[in-house]
Amino acid sequence: MENQDILATVDHTLLQQTATWEEIRQVCDDAVAFGCASVCIPASYVKQAADYLGNRLPVCTVIGFPNGYSTTAVKVFETKDAIANGAKEIDMVINIGWAKDGRWDDLLHEIKEIKAACGGLILKVIVEACLLTKAEKVKLCQIVSDSGADFIKTSTGFSSGGATKEDVALFQANVAPHVKVKAAGGIAALQDAEALLAAGACRLGTSRIVKLVNGQQGTGY
Amino acid sequence: MENQDILATVDHTLLQQTATWEEIRQVCDDAVAFGCASVCIPASYVKQAADYLGNRLPVCTVIGFPNGYSTTAVKVFETKDAIANGAKEIDMVINIGWAKDGRWDDLLHEIKEIKAACGGLILKVIVEACLLTKAEKVKLCQIVSDSGADFIKTSTGFSSGGATKEDVALFQANVAPHVKVKAAGGIAALQDAEALLAAGACRLGTSRIVKLVNGQQGTGY
Repeated sequence: MENQDILATVDHTLLQQTATWEEIRQVCDDAVAFGCASVCIPASYVKQAADYLGNRLPVCTVIGFPNGYSTTAVKVFETKDAIANGAKEIDMVINIGWAKDGRWDDLLHEIKEIKAACGGLILKVIVEACLLTKAEKVKLCQIVSDSGADFIKTSTGFSSGGATKEDVALFQANVAPHVKVKAAGGIAALQDAEALLAAGACRLGTSRIVKLVNGQQGTGY
Repeated sequence: MENQDILATVDHTLLQQTATWEEIRQVCDDAVAFGCASVCIPASYVKQAADYLGNRLPVCTVIGFPNGYSTTAVKVFETKDAIANGAKEIDMVINIGWAKDGRWDDLLHEIKEIKAACGGLILKVIVEACLLTKAEKVKLCQIVSDSGADFIKTSTGFSSGGATKEDVALFQANVAPHVKVKAAGGIAALQDAEALLAAGACRLGTSRIVKLVNGQQGTGY
């Protein structure tokens, strides 16, 4: 694959707790320069980044991140707040404890509520695959498909594991045709990116691919 | 120190993403049985735990947790939502990127807004000491003292380090008299707990102390 084709799938991501505006602005500049799909940044920087980017690039942010256990009411408020500040894509984390408890109706209801709050904007649903059994992963493919969300996303990058080819292929085989797969977490090399895209992902969450193509040190999320 | 004196300072804590209601209920039962100060649990379980515990023990939950970079509006909504669900103590995470950017006024304003939303209930301010320089720690002692918050808390338990005796002593030496110190993260043994209390902490966030006293395996947060 050409580097530019890989870069076009990348949500260029900076979600470290210590990120300053100068670092976020650099991520915005790099994402524009390298033709990325979006920048994925903390909610507290969305307004500043959206004002800075204008129509050059969509801003993506994260909801219920990374642990997923805020209430549905909070996640819905957080989504509306992010969109009011200029976010065009929303990456939410499911309530993983509810998945462990088999509370599938609550999970479905929560995703539907957040999708409604998105008002037509893209919603990606992070399931944190490294914490799930295969049966839970397959069940969540069904829930995400039924919810009206646009993407299922593998990982937050803040738990014990990131995206794997196997999970991407499993998700791709089990979601409805309208649901796409985003791979995120631990994507450290161009070969990783190509392998995840070949397995069925059409969006990647990573900070390192842009840095690698740019000849910088490829560290971080 | 007697075990019961240590246990009386413990916010018995379960904040793992995968926690089920059965596990949360066990934490509630153990915290009551061992005379802890509170249970500290995810927001999505606050209502169920508060209904279950009644007046037997206060429920504590976490806000903007663990990364601290949701907007002030979201943190305030989250606080009100938690209190409406029965939370009696609130542990919030500061915006660490703002600290790195020297946005002290924004940090102070945010903590004051959340303290106002607490309406007299206890507010603890998590500064995530492992990510801060000594100068930032000292500055945050002043901010927390000026904010009206009740506690400064060392750590979330989800970053690169937990409570240290040195940080507890530094905080104790630099906060105003009305601000107490909570040590949390990596408290794995009764000796750790005693050392942190001796250094000036008067509240501990840990799951392991109760388990140790109870003769269970002391693992987890």
